[in-house]
Amino acid sequence: MRILGIDPGFGRTGLGVVDLQGAESKYIWHEVIETDVESDFSARLQAVRNDLAEAIRKFKPDAAVVESLFFQTNVRTAMKVGMARGVILLAIADANLPLVELTPNEVKQGIAGYGNADKHQVQEMVKRLLHLTVVPKLDDASDALALAIVGGTVFKNKIRQQM
Amino acid sequence: MRILGIDPGFGRTGLGVVDLQGAESKYIWHEVIETDVESDFSARLQAVRNDLAEAIRKFKPDAAVVESLFFQTNVRTAMKVGMARGVILLAIADANLPLVELTPNEVKQGIAGYGNADKHQVQEMVKRLLHLTVVPKLDDASDALALAIVGGTVFKNKIRQQM
Repeated sequence: MRILGIDPGFGRTGLGVVDLQGAESKYIWHEVIETDVESDFSARLQAVRNDLAEAIRKFKPDAAVVESLFFQTNVRTAMKVGMARGVILLAIADANLPLVELTPNEVKQGIAGYGNADKHQVQEMVKRLLHLTVVPKLDDASDALALAIVGGTVFKNKIRQQM
Repeated sequence: MRILGIDPGFGRTGLGVVDLQGAESKYIWHEVIETDVESDFSARLQAVRNDLAEAIRKFKPDAAVVESLFFQTNVRTAMKVGMARGVILLAIADANLPLVELTPNEVKQGIAGYGNADKHQVQEMVKRLLHLTVVPKLDDASDALALAIVGGTVFKNKIRQQM
């Protein structure tokens, strides 16, 4: 079962693909979509949608996992991240992908065993679980991979319960 | 010159189309997209995008005007409105429509002559300027028409300056 994790952001959106094989997660791919700060916002939204749609076409995931971000502190940031997030949810729905949403705490709990794990601990666990030799350079990429790993398990359990 | 005004919202998105003929604005059409609160958010975003794309195909506007909403007070609301707004900006960009963004104060100033005008005054001015016999039932529709009227003038002046 192939899972696409997406860490939505204003300037950067992390994408990570893993395959779930039994209790193991296998690393497939990651990328960070960085949009041009000089471009207007509409063009940046198109870039996020286009890159995401291309990743879905290329890697054919069975489900997508997105971080739920309702607790941003800054209203202006919340609005901007919301715009990117809306476009991402739309692209997932257009591709008919099942969607799993996880809070940052659920990701930390799922990957490191406790909800207060810091960024460094999450990165180290992603590296260890996926047998990577190095941690992905940008946080957004390791966050996307962490989402895919934890979300994949949630999704698998949901399917099992429905059977 | 045909202008499409869009008042983006979480549950309701107002659409209004007017033709600018000299200093006059002529009413063409309005609609409020209401999405099913029982549906999941992705499906609601698709509904907004589909209805908006259909209105653009049908009425072939020369420009779109959207309210800029960066000063919502509630973070959770800002995030939700942001998601709808992202999808709207994407649909406008996909249709290659020039975009004008106006703050609520600019709309009030442009339509009623002062930035502190209340909802009722805006509605009355929309009714008068477009020679309507009744005020559109939902606020979102008259707000969208107000955006189209004021945004049309802004857009026309911008084109004039570029010539």
